[in-house]
Amino acid sequence: MASIESSPMPEPSCRSVAIIGLGLLGGSVALSIRRRWPSVRLTACARSPETRALALDRSIVDEVFETPDAAANGCDLAVIATPVNRIASLTQTLAGQFPELTLTDVGSTKGGLVRELLGTASAKQFVPAHPIAGSEKSGAEHARADLFDDKPIVITPSGEELPQHVAAATEFWRATGGRIVTMPAEQHDATLALTSHLPHLLSSLAARQITREMLDLVGTGWLDTTRVAAGDADLWTAIVSENRDAILSAIEQSRSDLDTLQTIVNQGDDAALRTWLDTAKQIRQSAQT
Amino acid sequence: MASIESSPMPEPSCRSVAIIGLGLLGGSVALSIRRRWPSVRLTACARSPETRALALDRSIVDEVFETPDAAANGCDLAVIATPVNRIASLTQTLAGQFPELTLTDVGSTKGGLVRELLGTASAKQFVPAHPIAGSEKSGAEHARADLFDDKPIVITPSGEELPQHVAAATEFWRATGGRIVTMPAEQHDATLALTSHLPHLLSSLAARQITREMLDLVGTGWLDTTRVAAGDADLWTAIVSENRDAILSAIEQSRSDLDTLQTIVNQGDDAALRTWLDTAKQIRQSAQT
Repeated sequence: MASIESSPMPEPSCRSVAIIGLGLLGGSVALSIRRRWPSVRLTACARSPETRALALDRSIVDEVFETPDAAANGCDLAVIATPVNRIASLTQTLAGQFPELTLTDVGSTKGGLVRELLGTASAKQFVPAHPIAGSEKSGAEHARADLFDDKPIVITPSGEELPQHVAAATEFWRATGGRIVTMPAEQHDATLALTSHLPHLLSSLAARQITREMLDLVGTGWLDTTRVAAGDADLWTAIVSENRDAILSAIEQSRSDLDTLQTIVNQGDDAALRTWLDTAKQIRQSAQT
Repeated sequence: MASIESSPMPEPSCRSVAIIGLGLLGGSVALSIRRRWPSVRLTACARSPETRALALDRSIVDEVFETPDAAANGCDLAVIATPVNRIASLTQTLAGQFPELTLTDVGSTKGGLVRELLGTASAKQFVPAHPIAGSEKSGAEHARADLFDDKPIVITPSGEELPQHVAAATEFWRATGGRIVTMPAEQHDATLALTSHLPHLLSSLAARQITREMLDLVGTGWLDTTRVAAGDADLWTAIVSENRDAILSAIEQSRSDLDTLQTIVNQGDDAALRTWLDTAKQIRQSAQT
């Protein structure tokens, strides 16, 4: 595979991009865009003075502001990289102030957001997106230029976006190094409930079963399985809240499968247990890494 | 921390070690001992001709044999590194043939084994051990000299071992680079059910919930959480079979906690969810890496 840097890349059609919210994702979007589009001016809005200082010190962006509208002023495109529960209101505020601005986001749930904005003026400017990349670490200090390389960027159009905004957002997300996948918001949420939200909850579940005295005996298996459980509790509470129905279905599905496992182990049915484990193994081995 | 290689290490009191079963663990035991005790002669027993050829090609051991008794003949110590369900009978056979031999093992469950050998002549020679290290990869081709570095090696004495065998096995396991932890077999099994076996089953559970079509959208969270689910299904079936009672308790405990989570999510109780997630985060962050 050719490296990202050596791939041909057309000149960007936008000259200035605002990052609204400078955490791990917002910071990584900025660094990835700077790498591919060095001529584009980057601004950011961050609430904490420490984050604003860090963003300038590390040259993550060119200018920092305290408010979203100050950061977005004069920009062609703004990425909303806040927790999911703040995206809808920020989108409506910025769309109202800047009618030419292309808006996109990094929210990990999409259905509620798309439904909330449907029929509003902002739906014409807003291209819902979810870059599937992250880490159990949070904060701009962990931002990385390569976070999105070859990672899926899911775009979930509401159908109300103007074509020029879809084109601008797609070009922008491609420049982060990710690969674009397009699907309806509901399909995205049902899929992510199973590929991301439920695994996170099961990881936390596994971590919760041990006492501190047992930590001395954990091995790489426990460490891998529970890695994401170290993620930010507020962030994940917001994700679960936004995607509650799909997550409840996923919990119910896994609970039923756990019942099956319990019965198999209780009965000492080794053949059934081998098949149960082997199905998981086949799926895991089909994944790329 | 000083590197393993630079730590002072007394001369080994054994001159020849047999590895019975050359998979990932047996091969890694051999490589780690060769690194620290280069003068010790290493033999191995492996059933497949391919593994025997690989062991000589990679200089994992000095000599290979088709049968356990041929490998152990003339040795001071033998490590039984087969699947758990074969350890008891191999221990009895080798103890019967070689009354001076120190025997130890790598089995990841200990209670059933200790109970099975209690009161037999072999219990005097056998020092039950479990090095807590591994990988989702299996086979001697993945063996590594540093697999046990700073990893816990749990020794679960039955109380019937002769002191010289305990001393020899402890010295041996220290030479692999691991750190010795001693506890009763039942405590080991109850702990490992929660720190290793249940996490493995929850990892498999997470992997089983997605379809192949969804694999394109998995991120690093899913990949980490499900990593161990790629492990060998036969090996894990044997582990569950050997530690059934403790694993059933662990499943029941996690099922009850999953019920709690389901209620919290269903009620939309964000404060309770944040606390539930934060408990997991605190435990995970207390782990070393």
